Amino acid sequence: MKKKKGGLAVRIIPLGGLEQIGMNMTVFEYGDSMIIVDCGLAFPSEEMPGIDLVIPDITYVKQNEKRLKGIFITHGHEDHIGALPYVLTQLSVPVTVYATLLTVGIVEKKFEEHPVGPNVEMKVVCYGDTIKAGDFSVEFIRTNHSISDSAALAIFSPAGVIVHTGDFKIDYTPVFGDTADLQRFAELGSQGVLAMLCDSTNAVRPGFTSSERTVGRTLDALFSENRDHRIIVATFASNVDRVQQIINSAHRYGRRVAVEGRSMVNIIGTAIELGRISIPEGVLVDLDALKNYPENQTVIITTGSQGESMAALSRMAASSHKKVTILPGDVVIISATPIPGNEKAVYKVINELSRKGAKVIFQDTHVSGHACQEEIKLMYSLVRPKFALPVHGEYRHLMAQAAIVEALGIPKENIPIMSCGDVLELTQESAKIVNKVTHGAVLVDGLGVGDVGNIVLRERQNLALDGIIVVVMTLEKETNALLAGPDMISRGFVYIRDSENYLDEIQEVLDDAVYECMEQKKMDWSHLKNTIRDRMSDYIWKTMRRSPMILPIIMEVE
Amino acid sequence: MKKKKGGLAVRIIPLGGLEQIGMNMTVFEYGDSMIIVDCGLAFPSEEMPGIDLVIPDITYVKQNEKRLKGIFITHGHEDHIGALPYVLTQLSVPVTVYATLLTVGIVEKKFEEHPVGPNVEMKVVCYGDTIKAGDFSVEFIRTNHSISDSAALAIFSPAGVIVHTGDFKIDYTPVFGDTADLQRFAELGSQGVLAMLCDSTNAVRPGFTSSERTVGRTLDALFSENRDHRIIVATFASNVDRVQQIINSAHRYGRRVAVEGRSMVNIIGTAIELGRISIPEGVLVDLDALKNYPENQTVIITTGSQGESMAALSRMAASSHKKVTILPGDVVIISATPIPGNEKAVYKVINELSRKGAKVIFQDTHVSGHACQEEIKLMYSLVRPKFALPVHGEYRHLMAQAAIVEALGIPKENIPIMSCGDVLELTQESAKIVNKVTHGAVLVDGLGVGDVGNIVLRERQNLALDGIIVVVMTLEKETNALLAGPDMISRGFVYIRDSENYLDEIQEVLDDAVYECMEQKKMDWSHLKNTIRDRMSDYIWKTMRRSPMILPIIMEVE
Repeated sequence: MKKKKGGLAVRIIPLGGLEQIGMNMTVFEYGDSMIIVDCGLAFPSEEMPGIDLVIPDITYVKQNEKRLKGIFITHGHEDHIGALPYVLTQLSVPVTVYATLLTVGIVEKKFEEHPVGPNVEMKVVCYGDTIKAGDFSVEFIRTNHSISDSAALAIFSPAGVIVHTGDFKIDYTPVFGDTADLQRFAELGSQGVLAMLCDSTNAVRPGFTSSERTVGRTLDALFSENRDHRIIVATFASNVDRVQQIINSAHRYGRRVAVEGRSMVNIIGTAIELGRISIPEGVLVDLDALKNYPENQTVIITTGSQGESMAALSRMAASSHKKVTILPGDVVIISATPIPGNEKAVYKVINELSRKGAKVIFQDTHVSGHACQEEIKLMYSLVRPKFALPVHGEYRHLMAQAAIVEALGIPKENIPIMSCGDVLELTQESAKIVNKVTHGAVLVDGLGVGDVGNIVLRERQNLALDGIIVVVMTLEKETNALLAGPDMISRGFVYIRDSENYLDEIQEVLDDAVYECMEQKKMDWSHLKNTIRDRMSDYIWKTMRRSPMILPIIMEVE
Repeated sequence: MKKKKGGLAVRIIPLGGLEQIGMNMTVFEYGDSMIIVDCGLAFPSEEMPGIDLVIPDITYVKQNEKRLKGIFITHGHEDHIGALPYVLTQLSVPVTVYATLLTVGIVEKKFEEHPVGPNVEMKVVCYGDTIKAGDFSVEFIRTNHSISDSAALAIFSPAGVIVHTGDFKIDYTPVFGDTADLQRFAELGSQGVLAMLCDSTNAVRPGFTSSERTVGRTLDALFSENRDHRIIVATFASNVDRVQQIINSAHRYGRRVAVEGRSMVNIIGTAIELGRISIPEGVLVDLDALKNYPENQTVIITTGSQGESMAALSRMAASSHKKVTILPGDVVIISATPIPGNEKAVYKVINELSRKGAKVIFQDTHVSGHACQEEIKLMYSLVRPKFALPVHGEYRHLMAQAAIVEALGIPKENIPIMSCGDVLELTQESAKIVNKVTHGAVLVDGLGVGDVGNIVLRERQNLALDGIIVVVMTLEKETNALLAGPDMISRGFVYIRDSENYLDEIQEVLDDAVYECMEQKKMDWSHLKNTIRDRMSDYIWKTMRRSPMILPIIMEVE
């Protein structure tokens, strides 16, 4: 049986994590065994108004769920875990999710808000552990990243060993734990690795990503320079090591710390519980208790480093935060780099904070959690895979990694650039894309999963551009006599009070269109609606160069 | 009379160019004389769907137009000239616009598309010329920037001299013309300058902006490395010096050049006509003629360096350009840095180009046209104004310049940070904000200027988020009997074919709401509409966590 289903080939099917940042999810198959690595969400782009988040289309997984032997998570970031509740509730088989301690803690916290039912079991894995999953065995290997307990995976199959780096950097002086397990990667390299899926996020950046600890030194310097003022530090909720360093600096300079922002409170709570962050007695206090201390002996660690409009820092900047008022002299450190697309929002928050008299520091206060070019070279040189599979990046990132890998001597034909849904068949001899499965982005809007598709999005975009004009009229059923209307109501088109004359002109065009249809006795609905739409659209384009949506509605009375 | 209207005070009223990037426009007044410096537009932000461009509110100028003695333009960029057609057509007095040769050329080209009537006269000014304008005299001083013929202004008034730097950098080896007129700035400094309005764009950046000529060397290197392929270079249409350098490199490596993109063709055409760009015989060919040469002997200079969706490069990347098809091996150089907010659009274009096999080069291929911190220090040290007025930047930029200036020894109270509409009264003794005039952003959507305000924008944003549900019904006038409906039509809400059951549920809620009103005989329209809106909103929020706009329309039949 197994031979028939692919023989000695292992199949790799990315369902996300390529093209679009986020939504990392990869299916691995050998014979009758299927495992999934990561299950992340993506945040919506500008072209997706109203959408809360985006998850991978798992049609293929559902069709093959009987073969699923486990889900393996590399670390606790949303783009690797965020789709778990949505994916798990779509499956009807029992599923075990394997991850390291902090990752499991964060995922379980998530399941409190989004229950996934009794079919799901979470299992904590330690670095070095190997999990048997059908024909696969999966070993967790220590890496460094911007969250503790990050892992790479060595996926053993009868067809060969595949290494998945997860998101990684190499930090020789990490804040928590040890340097990535270079020995184990080297050992695997000696024994022979068939393929490696490797993080491409920073593949366009030369050099080596700085150690997380360098940020600690910067923070110390900033705390030392700003002894007379309250300090507010914004960073990613999930950057547990950064929070540890902020707390270290605060403690060193005799300050109390409060944490603000829901996701921050959740993750830090979990990290404390699990011993992934250590806080000296008495340093952490409730936000409400902070007012009992002089301002220059306090620190607030907050969400909002990306300028997210509802996050705590943005609310402070906009004077809409219930508990924190920005005061002249406050020092605000933004310990993060804007993710592409968020720049303007971040600058807006900085401007608002500056205007309130705060001193905002946002340069040289962050290091990336991803490997730059020299680290990528190091990882490939340790693992020495036969095939290189750049993942986790836009196309330009994947291509940048491919160029690096080619320079290391891996032949171009052994560096397939995958797209979502591709079925890559890997043997010791070859890597071939043999098929394409259903894949895509499923949009989550409120409680609706997947009910907003391209048509609805396009309608939303059109409505946003020039608004809508609704036309209503009532006809007598038998005679088609006009009993009421045509009336016209617009939203998002022009400011009605200032544009009465113009709206009267359009009403005239509408009346003429209806009158013409009646005269010609062409009162079938589709003709009537089309005539109305065409006449009004033409007139509005001619006079205003705008294209509002025009929605004629006809009612009939017997 | 003059004494009464401010005595020896000069008044400065910025109507744009602060807070928001772009839309530079400043009013200067002394006694009965008013002049305007620059008249720019801004591009819409994400929160302005459907808006084409943004211009300053000139209510104050219109109210005082009789006192207007002239408009002075520092250089030919859209954020300094783009509002001219809209502003000039709103004025009913004769106006003279003064600018240097290339600037006048670009403005006149603009007036061909947007005629401004016989009231407007354009006058070409040379560096060193002084124009008398009521109580003011205005001298044009040579600066460097990313477009030729840029000028600073020395504005002489009985209250003192005010220098306006315009947008500037100091380029010791400019591509066209000479270095900024350091001698003249120094001379003014010796004679005594009351105040300087100074470009803040790069005030957050340490060091000195590199010479435009460094880009030329990079281009030469890239042309030398890529002799076997077609080269496409995208840059700002208005960066005439950059285009000159691309043409120089092309000529050096024996290539023919075509220019693509409407704004690029327009500006380069004007620059050639006016001798601001020099092209060796035969190098420039029509885009259609380019196919007569081997690909590796051709260069296309194009718009679209900001990822603008309708620009030529984006159309090439999306395979929707009529004349240019991207080929594997093409080398695309993006000679520009994304303006904040454009990053994602630029990366999208890069990804699309890479996917087509093009090699995209976008790092180290651009230098800024604005002064960094050391240049700002140099300018202040030459001009030695009593008052420093940071302009041209967001609040964080203005504050950064203020910090630089304070470090140079100008006391903080002599560095007023202005907002739009502020009336700053300047005398030899003091700088005081004494008043606030009408100011703001006027939105241009198609041919409509100012008819889209905050209410319409908010409606557009709401429509975009969750769409609209239109509810229609027909009542009998006397009896309020329901003759037709209530019917429900949605757009941008859910995909109708997949959500029939859900829409049926909402219809039931709607029917119940109407039935209830009828039962209770509360059929006045506002009650009926409110009940419908409330019931449907509640139900949809409860079941879906969405808030579509709900628009009930009632028709009456006698």
